[in-house]
Formats: sequence, C-alpha cells, structure tokens
Amino acid sequence: MTDQMPPQTDTALICGQGALPGLLAIRAPEAMLVQMEGFPADLGDCPVQSFRLERLVPLMEQLLDRGITRVCFAGAVRRPRIEPEFFDARTATLVPRILTAMQSGDDAALREVIAIFEDWGLSVVAAHEIAPDLLASEGVLAGAVTEADRADAARAAEIVAALGALDLGQGAVVAQGLCLAVETLPGTDAMLAFVAERVAALRPNPKGARGVLYKAPKPGQDRRIDLPAIGPETIRNAAAAGLAGIAIAAEGVLILDHAATVAAADAAGLFLWARA
Amino acid sequence: MTDQMPPQTDTALICGQGALPGLLAIRAPEAMLVQMEGFPADLGDCPVQSFRLERLVPLMEQLLDRGITRVCFAGAVRRPRIEPEFFDARTATLVPRILTAMQSGDDAALREVIAIFEDWGLSVVAAHEIAPDLLASEGVLAGAVTEADRADAARAAEIVAALGALDLGQGAVVAQGLCLAVETLPGTDAMLAFVAERVAALRPNPKGARGVLYKAPKPGQDRRIDLPAIGPETIRNAAAAGLAGIAIAAEGVLILDHAATVAAADAAGLFLWARA
Repeated sequence: MTDQMPPQTDTALICGQGALPGLLAIRAPEAMLVQMEGFPADLGDCPVQSFRLERLVPLMEQLLDRGITRVCFAGAVRRPRIEPEFFDARTATLVPRILTAMQSGDDAALREVIAIFEDWGLSVVAAHEIAPDLLASEGVLAGAVTEADRADAARAAEIVAALGALDLGQGAVVAQGLCLAVETLPGTDAMLAFVAERVAALRPNPKGARGVLYKAPKPGQDRRIDLPAIGPETIRNAAAAGLAGIAIAAEGVLILDHAATVAAADAAGLFLWARA
Repeated sequence: MTDQMPPQTDTALICGQGALPGLLAIRAPEAMLVQMEGFPADLGDCPVQSFRLERLVPLMEQLLDRGITRVCFAGAVRRPRIEPEFFDARTATLVPRILTAMQSGDDAALREVIAIFEDWGLSVVAAHEIAPDLLASEGVLAGAVTEADRADAARAAEIVAALGALDLGQGAVVAQGLCLAVETLPGTDAMLAFVAERVAALRPNPKGARGVLYKAPKPGQDRRIDLPAIGPETIRNAAAAGLAGIAIAAEGVLILDHAATVAAADAAGLFLWARA
C-alpha cells in the first residue's frame, strides 16, 4: 500500500461533529481526513475515510503507512458508544485503557486518547496550531460590556474554574450574581435552551443585568484536544436565553467563523468579550 | 392590640411555597402562620396572615406584640422581587442589608435574614426541630442500591460538596460516573426535566447504570433554613428522567410525606437511600 500511495502529507485530521473539521480542512487542504462513524462533520466534497474507535489500531497503522506523523482532533465526539463485536484483536488489547479512561471523566479520556496515539509514534497537535486565527486575543469583539456584566463574568469564571477542577463542564451562565445554569454533558446549547425555557422569570430584578454566558478551558486541561468553541449559533442561543452577552477566556476558546460570530452578536445586540 | 389578643403561642411559621408549611402546621397546630405574598403554600383552612418583605419591620414588631419568640422558615421562597414603593420607612433602613444579601448568593441571603430576625429578638428554629420525623436516618428506604449506583452517588456527593463551597445548588445527577446535570436556581424539578429531555441518549452504555439524583445540604450551611427537601413528586420526576434512584444525605434532607414518597419509589421501581 505504501508503494502505490506515497505520502503527500504528514497530517491527519481526526474529525468529530460540528464546523471545526471543515474550518481546519480549508486551512490544511493537503491533510488526510478521517471521520469517526456516527459523528458527521460538514466536510463538503473532501475525500474522507471513516473509522470506528473499536478499530483504532488498524487506523493508526494505516496512518503510519501513509507517512502521517501528526494528528489533530477536530470537533466534538460525545462519548461514542462501544460495540464489543466490532473490535479487532489488536484494538481489543486496548479495551481496558479505553474503558477506564471513558469512566474517568472527559479529561482523563482525552489524555488517554492522546497517550495511545503517542504510543504509536503519532504526535497530537492542537487545532489552533493549524488555525491560530480561531483563538481570540483579549478584547471586546462586539457590543459593550457593563460593570454588572463584568461582575457576572467574574463570578461565572470562578464557577467554571471550580467545576473544571472536578473535570466538569467548560461553561456557566450567571445573571445578577446568580448562577442560572452550569454546563454538563449535553453541552452549551442545551444549557442555553434550559435558561431560555426555565430561568427567565427567576431573575431577581427584571430590569437588571440580563446575564452572561462564560466559556473557558478547564484549569490544567491539555489544550491539544477539546478546547471550548463558540460560533454564530451560540450567539443566537444566548440571545434566545435573554442574555446580555458572551465572555470567553482569551486565547482559550475557539471562535468558529469569527466574522459571522461577530456579525451575529452585533445583529442580536449582544456583547462578545475575550476576557483576559 | 396586645391587650385584646393575648399570646396563645410562642411560635410563628414563616411560610413559603410547597408542602412543608402545611406539614409543619399540622405538627404545630397552635403556631401563628405568616405567608409571604406571591409564594402560596397549601395551608388548607388555617388562618394565615400575608406579608411582603418590604414590610418586614412591621411584621416583626407585630410578632413580638403577639408574644412570638421564635420563628421557623418553612418552604421555598425563590428570590422574591422587591418593589421599592412598598417599603415602609423602618424596613427601608434595612434595604442595604437586604439587597447586599440577595446579591451575595443564597447562603448569604439566608444568613442575613436570620440575623435580622435575631436582631429583633426573635430566635430562628429549624423545621426539623418542629418536625424531627421529616429527617431521614441512614438506610435504604426503598428498592435496592447497586455498586454502580453507590459509585454514582459518591461522585455526585463530591460534586455537590464542591458546588456548595461556591454557594451553588444542593443537587446533581450522575450516571456511569458522568455528571448529567447540576442544580441551579430553577431547582431540582427543572434539573430533572432537563435530564428527561436532553440527556437520555447521552449515557455511554444504554444498558448500564441509569444514574442517581443526589441531594445534600451545602457544607457549612446554616441548617435552620433551606434544608433540601424531596417528596413523591421528586420520585416521579426522577423516574421520568430515567434514573435508578435517589440518594440523600442522611439527617440532612427533609422527606415531605415519608410514606407517600417511599410508596412512589416502590411504585416506580426506584431506590431511595439516605446515605451516611
């Protein structure tokens, strides 16, 4: 196989769901695209090879055969279900590592995935190494941030940091100093829908600060996988939840489609703030 | 007023929403009942006097005039909205204390409310001093608890303790080691509805442990106000969320209508466990 198909690239994108895989594919057009079955990304007409976690070892060996030396994980893979009958014999030997990792929280699972690829001689690079423009530097990118919003963002940042120490979510919603919601397994959009449906009437002062969605990586998280991300849809969902704006940790959160995200914030009257 | 209406009781129940006020009124039939406007409790035909937080000082003086020496807060009062035009002159002097407390999280707000009553010479007693039978001692009250359930409850207890240190909620849902939801301002039932609607499909192993709702007081919380509570409706909502059962901190959570709650757990096939 290596004889007929000489290496043209040293990079493979391991694609999960969402917009990030496509954004990286545009920026690294020569990269090989590998897609986890059941987690469709919008990759347009790019040739893509699908794989299952149960056949991880054959995949890694195929990557090495093709001259791949580094992989980049792009896009969400929410706890894939494992079907024991799909394991090949060699990947089956990794089952204890994979299962233990999956039961130990997201951070542990991702660290183990990185470790497995590195054990096979494949280095793992961050999405923002391929696309540094997706990480926002400190500053207000849209709208205006009030003192009350800054206080809400500070409280949310404190909560997200504490949750991160528990290996929990990367987001929280705070309004008027009160925590309205905390991100868990279902993710940011589900949290914002919860706020939209159940929280609006609970704000102590109906004319007071409308609240802030804050997103940040976990403290100590390996930033090569699973950086939090926002995009235009996050803006629209935050607006539907009645929030004043979105604060993100500067240099720690991916903005997918920067121009469209800022335009959505401007259109909805929300601020977007990369907080130092 | 004190001449015509001699004191018949030394206790007033300050009633919020839910079933707890009625359960206490049955156990202390001589107590005076005071109801916060906008937070209706089911008190049957008992005579009840309503009040607004903006007229707190006249209420406290009226209680003292009637010979009341202790008050018991019963039932949920979710962040009452303050209407500035309703303040009387003396309660208005408390506005800075009240507003600062309300902006400092639930614990701070409740500690301040206790402090204000005590400043006026009224002692604050816990609901479980009036109704000790509402607090469950350690033990399995319904169903059977598996090892996986115990592990999920332990993880949830760790999360609730950490959240409590942030003055956040008193509950969390964990399944297969994963945190599915965390209780915030909208409360337990809203959290369980979130799990029912958005989480079921995310459990990694569809045939694995279904998960546990865990409830506990915050570490260091003043247990005279706002102990967490469960009842038959909590059981039904946990069942609708697909959970295996409910674990509560022994001696730290009120069970409203013990017999009906255990019966609901038995009927739904859920365990109910007061965890030491």
